[in-house]
Amino acid sequence: MRAIDHITITDAAIEQMSATPNPRLKQIMESLVRHLHDFARDVDLTPEEWLEGISFLTAVGQKCTPFRQEFILLSDTLGMSALINHLHDRRALEVGTKTSLLGPFYRQSSPQMNPGDCIVKSPRQQIVIYGKVTDIHGKGIPNATVEIWQTDEDGAYDLQKQDGVDVPVMDMRGTFHTDANGDYYLRTVLPLGYMIPMDGPVGAMVLAQKRHGYRPSHIHFLVGAPGYRELVTALYSQEDEHIDSDTVFGVTESLIINLKQDDPNSPMKGYPAINYNFSLGAAAADGSGRVGADPSQITKVSH
Amino acid sequence: MRAIDHITITDAAIEQMSATPNPRLKQIMESLVRHLHDFARDVDLTPEEWLEGISFLTAVGQKCTPFRQEFILLSDTLGMSALINHLHDRRALEVGTKTSLLGPFYRQSSPQMNPGDCIVKSPRQQIVIYGKVTDIHGKGIPNATVEIWQTDEDGAYDLQKQDGVDVPVMDMRGTFHTDANGDYYLRTVLPLGYMIPMDGPVGAMVLAQKRHGYRPSHIHFLVGAPGYRELVTALYSQEDEHIDSDTVFGVTESLIINLKQDDPNSPMKGYPAINYNFSLGAAAADGSGRVGADPSQITKVSH
Repeated sequence: MRAIDHITITDAAIEQMSATPNPRLKQIMESLVRHLHDFARDVDLTPEEWLEGISFLTAVGQKCTPFRQEFILLSDTLGMSALINHLHDRRALEVGTKTSLLGPFYRQSSPQMNPGDCIVKSPRQQIVIYGKVTDIHGKGIPNATVEIWQTDEDGAYDLQKQDGVDVPVMDMRGTFHTDANGDYYLRTVLPLGYMIPMDGPVGAMVLAQKRHGYRPSHIHFLVGAPGYRELVTALYSQEDEHIDSDTVFGVTESLIINLKQDDPNSPMKGYPAINYNFSLGAAAADGSGRVGADPSQITKVSH
Repeated sequence: MRAIDHITITDAAIEQMSATPNPRLKQIMESLVRHLHDFARDVDLTPEEWLEGISFLTAVGQKCTPFRQEFILLSDTLGMSALINHLHDRRALEVGTKTSLLGPFYRQSSPQMNPGDCIVKSPRQQIVIYGKVTDIHGKGIPNATVEIWQTDEDGAYDLQKQDGVDVPVMDMRGTFHTDANGDYYLRTVLPLGYMIPMDGPVGAMVLAQKRHGYRPSHIHFLVGAPGYRELVTALYSQEDEHIDSDTVFGVTESLIINLKQDDPNSPMKGYPAINYNFSLGAAAADGSGRVGADPSQITKVSH
């Protein structure tokens, strides 16, 4: 009979998992147990605090629906999702445009659009976004897919504006393709920054931490082409007051954009314009880099 | 604009939480973020693995009901609950009997019983448990409360045998009081060890780790008296084949008991007997030591 105390319990737990056939699962669970136990020892966690943690995690799980993923929101607000992105970028064979969070509002099969189309059904003030999709040497990639999604000028995604609707109409999103030179251009509106959902347990945590809960204004992109690493990223507005304090830590210097009121190089005149070139690295062996996902897919997995 | 990478993201996240008014919450969340990020860096967690983790935690949360607490089960199987117990015992002013897991089957207000009563409605082979409740110097504590709960001879608790019943009848549990000398005695049956619930995500994890999933045969106790530290513990059967490999790491050497077929000191003759004395330390400032809880209470908290 082994004498188990507050130190040896960690090795005892790891020893009981030592027959795990999948070596990667074994490695992950061993590390998780070590770090979780270190955490509990570091703060000398009490039974009451432990129980509060159990209640919190239970509430996070029970807040998840096919339209809401509260555990991703928790990961986002703890900086875990951004960290996973940075680790993912470090494994890339070639360093292209930096990754940013996919977020919970991506939807597959957004409307196919032609160059210059506007992705917003009822735009107030249209803007143009244009640029190139290239390899890391700056060579244009023809027929690359450029998926874009964003909020409207009031900070709401289509899914949020149609909460409760069985089959929400696609709006403020679309799929474009680059031309023979790798060029793309489209019309949209300048999105507004917004607060993360604050009516759940993660919102309560953010409030208890006196954080403002805002994400700065941003536009999501998913860019891909055969042979290249899929790029999930977002562009952030320099002017937004929360550009330096994103609640989910998605902002990276190289992803900050400037809107020019008058851009002589814009392919569509008469609109303020944003110019951004996406650079794709070679396809990596480690698969998709989508940090975030369609919550309905996750909910399906979880049942 | 700070340059955030896979290392500096940790300080960035902690800095954003730095205005947390509650100093203990601040300390706990800072430590949690550091250890979670260290974990992700240590194993170089990929987006696919992260997503599998999100799905797993979501499934754990959604498996919780008023009668089942899957997050406590997860904590138990990772050795976290046992660790919290060991940390709790270390903070005690006086070291009495060791703590063990409360588990998910504790129920408040179990039937009040008289000395020698049998807690099992339909016993097959009765046994006697007797002993003293004392302070750490061995002085008997009169009128101490001794709550006991356990499985039947087939390894099922009353709640499990009446799954789906609105108001399950109390069985295999009862509340006793010590006499003027601190003595208690009662009749029950020898419980059978059992497998933790394997039909949820935690069961799937345990199977993927090739663990047997069994807890050795044990009897739960909650012992208390005014002025003393509440004791949550359990006694474990030496003879059980899983005594050295409890799936939830609750067994401690000093909590292992032997059943004597013929015990001349037993207060009730004709039954096999277990003798165990509980020792209570002075009341501590750090509150309850209940690691585990009534799932219905937690579910209420979580809504």
